[in-house]
Amino acid sequence: MDCLFCKIVKGESSCCKVFENDDFIAILDIMPVNMGHTLLIPKIHFRNILDSPYDISTKTYPVLRQICCGLKKELLCDGLNIVQNIESSGGQEIFHSHIHIIPRYTDDGFKFTPDKKSYLCDDDMIRFAKKISNSIYKCIL
Amino acid sequence: MDCLFCKIVKGESSCCKVFENDDFIAILDIMPVNMGHTLLIPKIHFRNILDSPYDISTKTYPVLRQICCGLKKELLCDGLNIVQNIESSGGQEIFHSHIHIIPRYTDDGFKFTPDKKSYLCDDDMIRFAKKISNSIYKCIL
Repeated sequence: MDCLFCKIVKGESSCCKVFENDDFIAILDIMPVNMGHTLLIPKIHFRNILDSPYDISTKTYPVLRQICCGLKKELLCDGLNIVQNIESSGGQEIFHSHIHIIPRYTDDGFKFTPDKKSYLCDDDMIRFAKKISNSIYKCIL
Repeated sequence: MDCLFCKIVKGESSCCKVFENDDFIAILDIMPVNMGHTLLIPKIHFRNILDSPYDISTKTYPVLRQICCGLKKELLCDGLNIVQNIESSGGQEIFHSHIHIIPRYTDDGFKFTPDKKSYLCDDDMIRFAKKISNSIYKCIL
């Protein structure tokens, strides 16, 4: 399988690694939104969070928190964005699960302000909520 | 403390709830990027991931995965964006930790394409990586 992140995990492609443990590596994005923009990558190959094995899922957020703390302390950034793009329509470009951690600074000029929609009425929103809720409870952790 | 999400958790403010367990609720965002845009919220109050208690951290990603699966199955969306905005400069507006889960559709017109920067040279990138790496390993899980 010709997966860039699998090659990086195996050491077959170069990267600027900032963290590694048994289950994850974190590397600098070569096209950063801001300097220090980091990618957290599980070592095992799966497409994205929808396919994440349970044991990796339990370990992901604590490591993510550690990366965020490290970036914030070192770069003295004012904030962060943590972004996962799922599938092409969500902006996913490499189909090996990864999380973007983007250092942010006041007035850095990067705006994440998509147009917002609104529900037609409260009933419309409640109907939506019921449909989604049924589906979520059917999904297995 | 006048926290909207604490009030929602306590049932003192209304919401469209789509999921609840011992540690989290998930509700519809009232100003969705796309219909079904959901917020995953820990019941206990902390500001954002940087302050997340370890036991909540281990539980966050499995629940996030469950919400994502439920949304994708019900809405038949093509993709998702999962976004955390940390601090004002990152776009955080409510200072009780939460994760946005945004259903995405091919050609839905929502573009998340910030300008990218580049490192001056490989040495510049390696220098950055070393600084960040030292800081990350000093942070406690």
